[in-house]
Formats: sequence, structure tokens, C-alpha cells
Amino acid sequence: MNNIQHWGETLRLLVELAGTAAFALSGVLEGARKKLDAVGIFVVGFLAAFGGGTLRDLLLDQRPFFWVRHVEVLWGVLAICLLAMLFLRSQHFEATLKTIAVPDALGLGLFTATGVHQALVAQSPALVAVLMGLITGVFGGVLRDIVCNEIPTTFSDHQPYAVCAFAGGWAYIGLWQLGTPGWLALLGCLIVTAGLRGLAIWRNWQLPVWQA
Amino acid sequence: MNNIQHWGETLRLLVELAGTAAFALSGVLEGARKKLDAVGIFVVGFLAAFGGGTLRDLLLDQRPFFWVRHVEVLWGVLAICLLAMLFLRSQHFEATLKTIAVPDALGLGLFTATGVHQALVAQSPALVAVLMGLITGVFGGVLRDIVCNEIPTTFSDHQPYAVCAFAGGWAYIGLWQLGTPGWLALLGCLIVTAGLRGLAIWRNWQLPVWQA
Amino acid sequence: MNNIQHWGETLRLLVELAGTAAFALSGVLEGARKKLDAVGIFVVGFLAAFGGGTLRDLLLDQRPFFWVRHVEVLWGVLAICLLAMLFLRSQHFEATLKTIAVPDALGLGLFTATGVHQALVAQSPALVAVLMGLITGVFGGVLRDIVCNEIPTTFSDHQPYAVCAFAGGWAYIGLWQLGTPGWLALLGCLIVTAGLRGLAIWRNWQLPVWQA
Repeated sequence: MNNIQHWGETLRLLVELAGTAAFALSGVLEGARKKLDAVGIFVVGFLAAFGGGTLRDLLLDQRPFFWVRHVEVLWGVLAICLLAMLFLRSQHFEATLKTIAVPDALGLGLFTATGVHQALVAQSPALVAVLMGLITGVFGGVLRDIVCNEIPTTFSDHQPYAVCAFAGGWAYIGLWQLGTPGWLALLGCLIVTAGLRGLAIWRNWQLPVWQA
Repeated sequence: MNNIQHWGETLRLLVELAGTAAFALSGVLEGARKKLDAVGIFVVGFLAAFGGGTLRDLLLDQRPFFWVRHVEVLWGVLAICLLAMLFLRSQHFEATLKTIAVPDALGLGLFTATGVHQALVAQSPALVAVLMGLITGVFGGVLRDIVCNEIPTTFSDHQPYAVCAFAGGWAYIGLWQLGTPGWLALLGCLIVTAGLRGLAIWRNWQLPVWQA
Repeated sequence: MNNIQHWGETLRLLVELAGTAAFALSGVLEGARKKLDAVGIFVVGFLAAFGGGTLRDLLLDQRPFFWVRHVEVLWGVLAICLLAMLFLRSQHFEATLKTIAVPDALGLGLFTATGVHQALVAQSPALVAVLMGLITGVFGGVLRDIVCNEIPTTFSDHQPYAVCAFAGGWAYIGLWQLGTPGWLALLGCLIVTAGLRGLAIWRNWQLPVWQA
């Protein structure tokens, strides 16, 4: 039993690191497209990776932030930025974006679950908890796009992304209210979020458009 | 006497709901103009409606937020977004914007008064309290415009808007320092803010331009 | 000895006021270029002057803000905005920008030192403290550019600016860990930051560009 728990912890850590790296890379690539300098690329990578969780902690009034408790992730993102600047060329961008779609979807699910969990522990109502999960998963990318002076992709590319996190958040709430253990609720949220996101990409789902 | 107080409370609630709806609708319309998807429209509507008060509470370090204490307003904004997407077409936009000018001006006055009041209770100096009122009333629209990748209208359309809230805020301070009861200071702030805003629209007042 | 300390305090205050005025002016000029109205120009000037420190205090969860403790600086920025609108014309802009380069560099060094110091006192790890210093010195300008709907200059003009603050922050950390008194660490940070910034402008240094 301890063995399984140990494996679960390791798996969670792997998803967390892969998700954070995917988020940071999405920022690095957008910074490169916008011709930012080295400082700008690091800031945008950092915002994409930690902006969502930091905003959630600001709103829930919780300290210290994840990246203050685990400074090593800051060094990690710094390393990712440096490596990307040294080795990534523009002809690799599309392949990179396709490759990070999988860890990105898993990260979205995991970060959403973390956000919902923290909000529930802080006694938030269900809808607020789901919104906090959504903010955790999605607003890093929103801040990245705002700094890069673009309308946030999540709000304008008509592909389901935040909606997947929204559904996954409600899955977490449902499992939590059924009294299931935390790791199961987290797994449910992750499967619903990443599953829906995968389906959306595969089947090319589109969000409803305003009939102007 | 109790009867009058009861009517006052009801009136205040009506202004609050109408103002919040007007702010949310301003966000929904701008989201639609920018061709955001359903998720983006909800986020922008939410930012326009609650962004100002949330920023004020972050700055004054107060929790829980209005929309955490009253989750039903979140559902309300969600409903407004859905109804607007179902029934509002682009030929209705101009009429809608004209119609919401009245609840928008009333909401601006009420939200400004609320912000000034909370800052005064938190022992802020007078100028800071007025700024907090201004942030409450105006920065929802500023955040809405930033996410929509536009220079905030309030800062660039040369129509008095924030200035009306600024004057209304000082009216609140003055009445408060004279020792008038809270509802009277609130009423004074609301009349000055909404009155000036109405005059500005009616007489087509323009803010001074930089003589470049 | 007391005499020297007194002179040090006065000098620090002078640098602080000059730096704040330079930051505010940078905002006023950008607001004027973007044709904002009087309200917008004040908001952007205020953001440029106090945005970085306010964001740091939000992240470190510290209240009251600098401009709440010293309301007179708010009146000062208000006065700068009014005077600039009355007397600055577009043919003066370039000369003004050149003139404020010196107090701007000194302000960058001082504000960075303040940020690092506050973060160290709040028990932050070294890298986090340096980031807090960088946020204090640089993010006022970032917020100014975001509100003006531009990619932040610091991230895109390829001139060393944030990097100077980064180096100065590490100088502060090094001196602090050697046990030097606070004023010496502050002086070291200021000399490294402003010195590097001056060299960068003088020698026209460029940050490495992404080899796309």
C-alpha cells in the first residue's frame, strides 16, 4: 500500500514538473514570436508558469507562494529559458507546440485540481472554488498574453480550453462531496480536464460563436 | 421611520443590481465586438462587473470578496452573458449602450461611495479613500479594456467619467467629516457622481486635452 | 558621526524624490504620446511611480502601502502631472527623456535595494528577494506600458534595464550576507545598478537577441 502511495506521489510530481515546463515553454515561444529580449522572455515564461497559481494565492490571501517555498522551480524555469534561447530555432516552434500539448493538458488538469482543492479548504462556495481552479489553470496564459499585448488566446481562439478546466473543476467538487479521498478527486479532475482537452483537439471542437 | 429605512435598503439593492448588470453588459458588448468566444465573454463581463471592487479589496487587504459572500451574483452575471449571447444581435448594441448609460452612472456613484466608505473605515487618509472609491467604480472597466487589448476608454475618450467619481468621492468625504449619517453621505456621493456624469453626457463636456 | 548619518538620510530622501518624479514623468510622457486625457495621464503617472512598490507589497502581503503612509507623494505626483500638462510641449519630450535618464537610473537602484531589503526582512530566499527588488524597480514601467496598450519597453527595446537591477540586487544580497550595515548594502546596490545602467546607455550595450 505504501508502495502505491509512493508511486502516486512520484507520478504527481512528474505531472507537475512536466506541466510547469510546458506552461513556461508556451511563454518562451510567445515571447520569442514577439521579439522580446532575454529579460522579457524570462518574465513571460515565468508568468505563464506561475502566474495562475500566484493570482489564486493573492485572491485567497495565501502565502508563501509556490515558487517562494520551492525556489528550485524558479531556477528550473530560468534554465528552460536559457536552453530554449540557445537551442530552439523558429523552424522548431510548431513541433514544440505540438509536443507540449500533452503535458500542457495534463498540467491544466492538475493545476485546476490544486486550485479547487485550496479554495475548498479555505471554505469557498462550490462555484468560487471552480473559478479558483480555472484561474490557477488558465490565468498564467492570460497574463502571458496581456504582457505580450495580445487578446488572450484562451478567450479568442474558440477552442475549448478553460471550459475543460471548468468541467474538471465540477468533477472535483462532485467527488469531494461524495467523500472520496483527495487523490481520487484529483485524478477525476485530471482525467475529465485532460480528456476533454484531448477530445477537443482531436475532434477539432469549436466553442459557440456569438451570432452577431 | 422603519418603513423609510426599509425603502432605502430596497432602493440601494435595486441600484446595486442594476449597476452590476450594466457593468457586466458593458463587458459582454465589448467582448462581442472583439469576437471573443463564450468563455472570454463571461470573463470580460465578470471583470467589468466585479474587477473594481475586487482590486479595492486586494489593495485594502479585505476578504472575502463581494462575489464570494454573495455567490448568487456570479450566477446572475453568468445568466446575463448567456441571455445576451442568445438574444443580443449587433444591431441592438447601440441601443443597449444608450439604455445602460443610466444604470451605469448610478452604479458608478454607488460603487464609488462603497469604496470610499470601506477605505475610511480602514483608516485611510482622505485622498487615498477617494482613490479607492475611484478604483472601485472605474477599474472594472479598465481591466475589461486591458484584457480586450485596448487603451482603457475611461482614459482616452476625453469624456468625464472617472472625474465624476472623483468629485463624488470628495462629496462623500465632506459629508462624512460633517458627521452626517452613512446613508446621507452615500446619497450625496451618488447624486454628485451620477449628476455630473449625466450633465457631461447631456452637454457633451470634454476633458482638457494635452496641448502637444 | 551623527552629522554624516544625517547627510546620508537627506541624500537618500533626495534620490527617492528625484527617482519617483522621474518615474512619474516617464508615465506622463507616455500617456501624452498615447493621447490620453487628463485622468489617464494621472493614472499612468501614478502607476509608473508607485506600481512597482505596490505590486511588491501585494506579493509580500505588506500594508500600508508607501503612498498610504506618505499621502504627500500622491499630491506631488498630481502636481507633476498638472505642471507637465501646463508647460511641457511635444518639442520638449526628447530633452525631458534625456534629462530624467539620470534620476531614473538612480531611482532604479534605490527602489531595487528597497525591494530586496523588504523581501530579506520577510525571510524570502535570496533569488526571491532579488526578484522582489526587480519587481519594485521595473514593474511600475511594465504596468504603465500595459495600460498604454504596448509591449513593455523593458522587455522589448533590447537595452539593459531590468538586468542592471538584477545585478544590483545580487550585490545587495552579497553585502548583506557579509554582514555589512544596511546603508552600505543599499549604496552598493545603487552603485552597481545605476553604474551598469549608465554604462549600458553610454556604450550602447544590447541584450542578446533570440537567434530565430
